[in-house]
Amino acid sequence: MLHYLEEELEKLKEKIIKMGSLVEEQIDNSFKALFEGDLDLAQKVISRDDEVDKFDVKIDKHCQRIFALTQPVAFDLRLIMSSLMINSDLERMGDISVNIAERVKVLLGQGELLRKMIVDDMSVKVKKIVKMSIDCFVNGDAELAKSIINFDEEIDRLDRKIFDLLTEEMRSNSDLIVPCCHILALVRNIERLSDHATNIAEDVIFLIDAKMVKHSKDPENLKPKE
Amino acid sequence: MLHYLEEELEKLKEKIIKMGSLVEEQIDNSFKALFEGDLDLAQKVISRDDEVDKFDVKIDKHCQRIFALTQPVAFDLRLIMSSLMINSDLERMGDISVNIAERVKVLLGQGELLRKMIVDDMSVKVKKIVKMSIDCFVNGDAELAKSIINFDEEIDRLDRKIFDLLTEEMRSNSDLIVPCCHILALVRNIERLSDHATNIAEDVIFLIDAKMVKHSKDPENLKPKE
Repeated sequence: MLHYLEEELEKLKEKIIKMGSLVEEQIDNSFKALFEGDLDLAQKVISRDDEVDKFDVKIDKHCQRIFALTQPVAFDLRLIMSSLMINSDLERMGDISVNIAERVKVLLGQGELLRKMIVDDMSVKVKKIVKMSIDCFVNGDAELAKSIINFDEEIDRLDRKIFDLLTEEMRSNSDLIVPCCHILALVRNIERLSDHATNIAEDVIFLIDAKMVKHSKDPENLKPKE
Repeated sequence: MLHYLEEELEKLKEKIIKMGSLVEEQIDNSFKALFEGDLDLAQKVISRDDEVDKFDVKIDKHCQRIFALTQPVAFDLRLIMSSLMINSDLERMGDISVNIAERVKVLLGQGELLRKMIVDDMSVKVKKIVKMSIDCFVNGDAELAKSIINFDEEIDRLDRKIFDLLTEEMRSNSDLIVPCCHILALVRNIERLSDHATNIAEDVIFLIDAKMVKHSKDPENLKPKE
């Protein structure tokens, strides 16, 4: 039975890693489609969401099966619980990549405006934080996870800066009100990607350190160890 | 052992119901603070988030304890799994009520604009869908849960209508660009409340019908039975 559990947990971990790669690819492609105005690539992201959804259901069912057939404790139990939560965050990140892809059409030809509003800077930072969150799960790296939680604040600052840039731009040119509003909605989506990455990081810390850091206000919990 | 499991599941269900009431109250108060420009009430919502966070951790730990000490199957297993997911959605709805409360200050004195942009209509609909999602868990009502999933589309339509109203308003009066952008960001938050309510509804259907309807494109899965 112990051997069975070990094997199932290994398979579960592999599934989460594959789901992570798939969602990362969806996010990368949605940004590429946005900045290059590539409608075909945007459509590909939208169509591929089915694959993400199927993976999500598969992982949920796998967790359910392991719970029903074994009685995991300690690390094993935390691995299944965090897999459930991480899977849910990844699936929602997949949905957000679809939201981004769906906005490519209305923002077609606005590449210059997107760059002026530093949306590309934000996308680079968010792609990094998403990659880090998946890496920290793959490598069981709680220290990397802790650094993500601090990084999220940087994204929030950028988010506020873009808000100011957008309102300024709209005030100086009323023809840009509609595209700027689309960018504002887009940026809210991008910011949510970083929130989900933070959730994943918190789940990894729970998995490795057996400590729930979510809602923790103690900076010692969040600072990477020297 | 079976008796122990039953008792623990009952306690878990009670905790989720209490968490649901608390989050519902937070959402109601954040809207009240927004429309009445009540900064004290907004501050109360922000301060009370700690209570929501503590409840969230308590429920997570309770689920972990039940898993570690028993080997639940079938409905019992689904109840714990869905409690974990519902708890996570409720906690994020609590965070959104804080986001709404935090925006009360910048929208002070904009009650008329908020009503013109039909944000109050949207808040009424979203409060209803949130209440329904909690009720369907409390009463184990899968049919009510299915009607929520259809209701969510109505909110999306309202969301798009508000987007058009806002851009129109900004074009006709550039002094309103900043408050309208705050409203746009606010509406994105309100819309997310309805997404979380839909997630809860899907979890209730999984709990009651043992069927994963998330990502389902089959309308038969979603339609309330005649």
